[in-house]
Amino acid sequence: MSIKIGILGYGNLGRGVECAVKQNEDMELAAVFTRRDPETVQILTEGVPVCRIADAAEWKDKIDVMILCGGSATDLPVQTPEFAKMFNVIDSFDTHARIPEHFANVDAAAKEGGKVGIISVGWDPGMFSLNRLYANAILPDGKDYTFWGKGVSQGHSDAIRRVEGVRDAKQYTIPVESALEAVRNGENPELTTREKHTRECFVVLEEGADAAKVEEEIKSMPNYFSDYDTTVHFISEEELKRDHSGIPHGGFVLRSGKTGWDGENSHLIEYSLKLDSNPEFTSSVLAAYARAAYRLSQEGASGCRTVFDIAPAYLSAKSGAELRKTML
Amino acid sequence: MSIKIGILGYGNLGRGVECAVKQNEDMELAAVFTRRDPETVQILTEGVPVCRIADAAEWKDKIDVMILCGGSATDLPVQTPEFAKMFNVIDSFDTHARIPEHFANVDAAAKEGGKVGIISVGWDPGMFSLNRLYANAILPDGKDYTFWGKGVSQGHSDAIRRVEGVRDAKQYTIPVESALEAVRNGENPELTTREKHTRECFVVLEEGADAAKVEEEIKSMPNYFSDYDTTVHFISEEELKRDHSGIPHGGFVLRSGKTGWDGENSHLIEYSLKLDSNPEFTSSVLAAYARAAYRLSQEGASGCRTVFDIAPAYLSAKSGAELRKTML
Repeated sequence: MSIKIGILGYGNLGRGVECAVKQNEDMELAAVFTRRDPETVQILTEGVPVCRIADAAEWKDKIDVMILCGGSATDLPVQTPEFAKMFNVIDSFDTHARIPEHFANVDAAAKEGGKVGIISVGWDPGMFSLNRLYANAILPDGKDYTFWGKGVSQGHSDAIRRVEGVRDAKQYTIPVESALEAVRNGENPELTTREKHTRECFVVLEEGADAAKVEEEIKSMPNYFSDYDTTVHFISEEELKRDHSGIPHGGFVLRSGKTGWDGENSHLIEYSLKLDSNPEFTSSVLAAYARAAYRLSQEGASGCRTVFDIAPAYLSAKSGAELRKTML
Repeated sequence: MSIKIGILGYGNLGRGVECAVKQNEDMELAAVFTRRDPETVQILTEGVPVCRIADAAEWKDKIDVMILCGGSATDLPVQTPEFAKMFNVIDSFDTHARIPEHFANVDAAAKEGGKVGIISVGWDPGMFSLNRLYANAILPDGKDYTFWGKGVSQGHSDAIRRVEGVRDAKQYTIPVESALEAVRNGENPELTTREKHTRECFVVLEEGADAAKVEEEIKSMPNYFSDYDTTVHFISEEELKRDHSGIPHGGFVLRSGKTGWDGENSHLIEYSLKLDSNPEFTSSVLAAYARAAYRLSQEGASGCRTVFDIAPAYLSAKSGAELRKTML
């Protein structure tokens, strides 16, 4: 008996979940839900229906876990509580500041429906958060560092595209190697925003646009670029397509801390990700937590959880005995 | 109300737990138990009694969690089940092959006593195991690698000390940098024992011993050295004491895996530790899991657990709401 997965929202993330379900032998894709006309949506898995989101309620008893693949800005704050009344749900809500509010909404809805909701699943929030928690619990006397990249920031790429004279753009966030090394050497540096990351932009101009003006406008953009050392490269549309169509990302979570009666010994815990495809990796984490939601629900649990609340064994298809024998 | 910790066994690990308890504000040390004459044991914490192991039963209601700091070869297989009948217990049992048997024994004893036992806590088994599990659950189509070091192997140092003509010795296990790089580059190499680690030995000879003979005997020692590229340095007792009295260790857990409809995207998950003091880091992990054992017990749980079975939030002194707000 495999776990029946529903995918709600079929963009990069939804397609990633579809691929992840294929890789997990104890899961099967039951249906994909879209707000587009289902006739226009072509999915990868043969024989699986594409349905309207409006018809999702009819699938209440045919789906074990619904994975919500919408955006954090406007989709998930509404969808996750709404669907948690009918389904076990997983989302990748990543607006850090609004997590407490989202948690409360999903918790109330999931309890009302007797379902399990796991929110903010992915790598940050997600695996990075877990590593911050474990490292802090082990080394109470220490200092945390998170670096992102090298990777594409969708938000920053979008910001560049809004500049007049820009046809298309891709922005990479890059950790500063010397800052990373200082942390690894146990120097416990105090790092400014500028000292932690640089930003590299690849920009395709509209015909006749003023390159110098565009570059200046990008580099001085508050919040997005003005606090960083930013490099702007102007390239052709063909080059952008050829060299920058991937969605790589990654990053580093480090904690350096002291132990001993007088803090005489230093330790470094480092977790890092190097991802060819940001959405596909996030989707793979979503799929693993879908397994956990299914099991918790089978045990009679209800309400909202985060990665902090899920015992690791729930993520694996292996039994406890198998895990102890092969992975401990 | 702080968590009352007992330490059973006062060697490097026990002293490390004592230091860790000092760093955790929600814990206090209740007593140290030793098989030596308590009069001869001087601990670091003022005002805390040192008692005989034989008298531990008298502390049944005065200790929330007993942390067992004995060895895996002969102490823990007997002590953990014995004390799990009376106390919530934590151990660092690290004989991987015997974990299933140890788990069963501790589970039966802990259930009999209505207590919680968490076994095989530390970094390997422990944090490394957790990272293997998480990475496998996220990337089902992938390959695992574990490298140890640079660090002191007690077992290998002891093996050298048993060679005739050796007065004292210290052995370092060192990961092969080029092998690590091949894994990081996503080459998915098949690595032999020799290709993964080298061994470096610092040896103090007895007067008149034959250095060439000692070196040959070390390098050809089956299981310990014959499958590795081993370097032997002969140094003075003073040099050994001055340069090699620390107990550093660490290592790397990596999983490289593929996602996408046809496995077209590669990902690398890497977790690493760089530890000045192996026993103090292990002790710090033990202390964090003692908090989990205490809480589980307060919730009415009993029986044996491993790190796989403990939701991460149980390790932190912060509340769920605080964790979601500050670390997610």
